Amino acid sequence: MARKSGSSGEKTRAMVEEAATRLIARHGFAAVSMRQIAREVGVQAGALYLYTPDKQSLLKDIMRGHLQHLLESWAAQAPDPDLPAAARLERFVRFHIDYHILRAEKVFISYMELRNLDCDNFAEIERLRRSYEHILEEILISGAAEGVFHHTDTRLTTLAMIAMMTGVSTWYRDDGRLPPDAITTRYVDMAFRLAGGEPLAEAAE
Amino acid sequence: MARKSGSSGEKTRAMVEEAATRLIARHGFAAVSMRQIAREVGVQAGALYLYTPDKQSLLKDIMRGHLQHLLESWAAQAPDPDLPAAARLERFVRFHIDYHILRAEKVFISYMELRNLDCDNFAEIERLRRSYEHILEEILISGAAEGVFHHTDTRLTTLAMIAMMTGVSTWYRDDGRLPPDAITTRYVDMAFRLAGGEPLAEAAE
Repeated sequence: MARKSGSSGEKTRAMVEEAATRLIARHGFAAVSMRQIAREVGVQAGALYLYTPDKQSLLKDIMRGHLQHLLESWAAQAPDPDLPAAARLERFVRFHIDYHILRAEKVFISYMELRNLDCDNFAEIERLRRSYEHILEEILISGAAEGVFHHTDTRLTTLAMIAMMTGVSTWYRDDGRLPPDAITTRYVDMAFRLAGGEPLAEAAE
Repeated sequence: MARKSGSSGEKTRAMVEEAATRLIARHGFAAVSMRQIAREVGVQAGALYLYTPDKQSLLKDIMRGHLQHLLESWAAQAPDPDLPAAARLERFVRFHIDYHILRAEKVFISYMELRNLDCDNFAEIERLRRSYEHILEEILISGAAEGVFHHTDTRLTTLAMIAMMTGVSTWYRDDGRLPPDAITTRYVDMAFRLAGGEPLAEAAE
């Protein structure tokens, strides 16, 4: 969550969002009641309404929190915009995969429960998602301007690259064939292929 | 569904699976009751059990039906295995995207409701999914053997390519920027990039 957790109220609020995330990822938004969430947190059902007006707001807050935290985490470690696009693309791919494999439940909810957002909430979440996509899109455009990337459709390359990278969170296991670093290095190589750029020396085998 | 629909029983069974698919895609498996499915089909709740022993079997039948139909559809139009791998890859990409954008609900359920499958059912569905992945993997291996593809990790390239292509079904709209053919042509180009092969003449711009 992006919120400060100074007061115990903020701590409980964070616990509410964590409990709701777990339950929704397991059962789906429509099957989870406010009563169940309260039980999971260990508060009375009525007390839950101190932290959220309703289940719809809670869902939006979880999805907005996920995307805002994603954007803030990138901003906190984003490379200098004057760096070559190739270096920025590598950083973005490593960031995206590392971030997403640690948060499979939130990634899952953010995709799966879009169907349950009210129209206004959907629009807000879509704006945040677009902001994130634009980070990658801008890197791809810069790389083409530098003459190092050669993609034919920047928007589709962006969507394809994000889908390809996010897919890791659907199959990644801690005890899998490859350690996270090796996976990320291979995806850096594949991202360069998609961008139509020279693979980095470290990523090539 | 892959089943024959000769008898009215088989027709009703197909209707049950279609109704369940719609409801589960909308609300999630845990939130949908057998009663609701019966109402959607227009039969008594008790009559539903003539077609399926329980909701778990119904979910497995939907997911198995989706994957079997996918495999059968590919088999029905699969290119000669003696054709060059490049031609087979192009055919596979076109097939995969065309197939998936027409079936967004089933694609969505097949990914989202894996969590609700019993252990044995999950294993069966995973086997079918693997069979499908192996079709692409075999094409990539053939292309490397022919010296036309240059990927560094066949398994990860397979998973990345399938995630990239399936992603289209999450954003594709009939009234979008590009007609389906143009989208598919761009994804053929991107698939060749991922495979480390020369783009086909038609796909390059």
